[in-house]
Amino acid sequence: MIMETIRIARTALTAFCREVFVRLGLNELDAAAAADVLVAADARGIHSHGVGRLWRYANGLKSGQMRPDAEPRTLMESPMSLVVDAQGGMGAPASVSAMRRIIEKASAAGAAFASVRESNHNGISGYYAMMALPHNMLGIAMTNTAALGVPTFGRQVMFGTNPLAFAAPADKERGFVLDMSTTVVTRGKVEVYERLEKPLPQGWAVDRRGQPATDAHAMLDDMLRRVGGGILPLGGGGMEQGGHKGFGLAVMVDILCAVLGGAAFGHAISDTATTSARVSHFFGAIRIDRFRDPAEFRHDMDRLLGELRACPPSKGEDRVYFAGLREFEMEDECNRKGVPVLKKSYDELCSIGVAEGVEPPTPMPEVLR
Amino acid sequence: MIMETIRIARTALTAFCREVFVRLGLNELDAAAAADVLVAADARGIHSHGVGRLWRYANGLKSGQMRPDAEPRTLMESPMSLVVDAQGGMGAPASVSAMRRIIEKASAAGAAFASVRESNHNGISGYYAMMALPHNMLGIAMTNTAALGVPTFGRQVMFGTNPLAFAAPADKERGFVLDMSTTVVTRGKVEVYERLEKPLPQGWAVDRRGQPATDAHAMLDDMLRRVGGGILPLGGGGMEQGGHKGFGLAVMVDILCAVLGGAAFGHAISDTATTSARVSHFFGAIRIDRFRDPAEFRHDMDRLLGELRACPPSKGEDRVYFAGLREFEMEDECNRKGVPVLKKSYDELCSIGVAEGVEPPTPMPEVLR
Repeated sequence: MIMETIRIARTALTAFCREVFVRLGLNELDAAAAADVLVAADARGIHSHGVGRLWRYANGLKSGQMRPDAEPRTLMESPMSLVVDAQGGMGAPASVSAMRRIIEKASAAGAAFASVRESNHNGISGYYAMMALPHNMLGIAMTNTAALGVPTFGRQVMFGTNPLAFAAPADKERGFVLDMSTTVVTRGKVEVYERLEKPLPQGWAVDRRGQPATDAHAMLDDMLRRVGGGILPLGGGGMEQGGHKGFGLAVMVDILCAVLGGAAFGHAISDTATTSARVSHFFGAIRIDRFRDPAEFRHDMDRLLGELRACPPSKGEDRVYFAGLREFEMEDECNRKGVPVLKKSYDELCSIGVAEGVEPPTPMPEVLR
Repeated sequence: MIMETIRIARTALTAFCREVFVRLGLNELDAAAAADVLVAADARGIHSHGVGRLWRYANGLKSGQMRPDAEPRTLMESPMSLVVDAQGGMGAPASVSAMRRIIEKASAAGAAFASVRESNHNGISGYYAMMALPHNMLGIAMTNTAALGVPTFGRQVMFGTNPLAFAAPADKERGFVLDMSTTVVTRGKVEVYERLEKPLPQGWAVDRRGQPATDAHAMLDDMLRRVGGGILPLGGGGMEQGGHKGFGLAVMVDILCAVLGGAAFGHAISDTATTSARVSHFFGAIRIDRFRDPAEFRHDMDRLLGELRACPPSKGEDRVYFAGLREFEMEDECNRKGVPVLKKSYDELCSIGVAEGVEPPTPMPEVLR
């Protein structure tokens, strides 16, 4: 089955989302940040974090699960650090603001880091890490999420997908942007298998006894009811494929996001019927010129990334992609041709537009089927 | 086959190694650092990086592959940064010195980072990350290594095992210490399969065409001759199990260690018959009290680690280990009972002792078989 896709100009799609967020009570600045992060996900091909989520955000803002008028409060601050309480507001505006502030701090201090707590889902972590690139800085972004990951040798969820992102600028290349969950897959991927009624690949999840899970539906159900079972860390079950490393990375992210900022961590983070998970983020920015001439750094990054591009592919594959390459190529295409949105998601956007009194964006003439 | 093991008091074993390094031309301080890092590996159960390597270090120092009298040169320095050229000396002394210097810098600046280039194998990265713990700092340590890792969809080696370590202090718990290679396994593990003539597990390596490798001997041979084939990143081959994430982590480590310090990177790093690989390291230290009261942080770390300990194990497993737990337990035992050394390695130590005129350490009375 080929899903029908509509392309919408990036600016129009972003303007629509921004306007919806304004109608839902966000101020102009926060609405613009939330819209930009959301559409960037689609433009970079990460549709799981794109405008298909707008209805969830809209519902969350209307139900009070997320506070549209939250005013983040600074709990601690120094020339190289920042701890912010996002007061239950949307994750993206709080994250953009925190990253901006530490880039400014890093300009003076050389490096700066922030923990943001009492926040919500903040979209693609790579967005925040990439904010450092135009400043000749290395960017770091992490977040914890509602618990769904099972430790090596365990059978209960103890951590989230806990993504980590790292961005480094280049010269002719667009840069290196790693943005990865530290679980082997995210819940979204397991849900796809559930819908298709396909057995889960080995190494993705365990059942309530901690044994390899094949039934996606049963596993998700047990996991949500916290009776055991969940998704495995990067590296899969046991230690043979390095599952203990993914487990370690997930806990590292939780320490930097939550423990460092004095927030909830581990299995205490969960969605309930009436509240979204209160998650924490961690951001970092490091000036390259404190180590070497940024122009030389960028030149060497071109060499490194060029060599990875040129790595001979394995039999049956076209090419090797370094982290961020596919996403930058996708983004360039979307900036030219418009951002692809599933017909189903477009219909949802139109309904939201009607409900909030915002004119839906017009599709671009070229329609891909 | 049970390998015969001898236990040697940690202090005696360390003193022996230190004396050997002094005889090989290191100054007292560097010799002490190199010996301490080496024995710490055995004490923490990471025997691949322990005294079994002493003969390699000794040979390297005698052949000139590593310079015993190298004096690291500071290339760039600021209140929060340090770039050092290790001048081809041993990795451990240069690393201990760099980590000490950035801990001191971080005491004032809040955070500090170092790139060390023209260095050599520096043992367990966790050692350097852990140096931050008594200072109420978070510790970070990474290193690149001789290329042996194949990118997702590739068939040529483009990066090393590129370990990363992260340490965070706790209160009653001993702390969280992640120390992991970013490849699915290290070369040592593949060599064990080669010796046993066992087929390699799926997901560990690819052959010269980039297809799953099962023959360890053929794969290692092709890899060393650079005709294709090598070890896969954490997450294995392709993207189904997240191999692209391990690939991304390995490149991130290379950027921080090598590109940031202006050193060689990627496939340019290799051992030859007459030189050891010139590798680079990255270190970081971040003051916890710039974010919150360290006592509260440590208390919350106890809670986090305690909850992970208490995670119900999967059927057939005894318990869940967080990163560092097994190693701290091992270290406590070794500090009491002595450090276990294979009989074969002990015989090697004795030969080195004879060659360098150093009295070999006496085994402890208790002998485990």
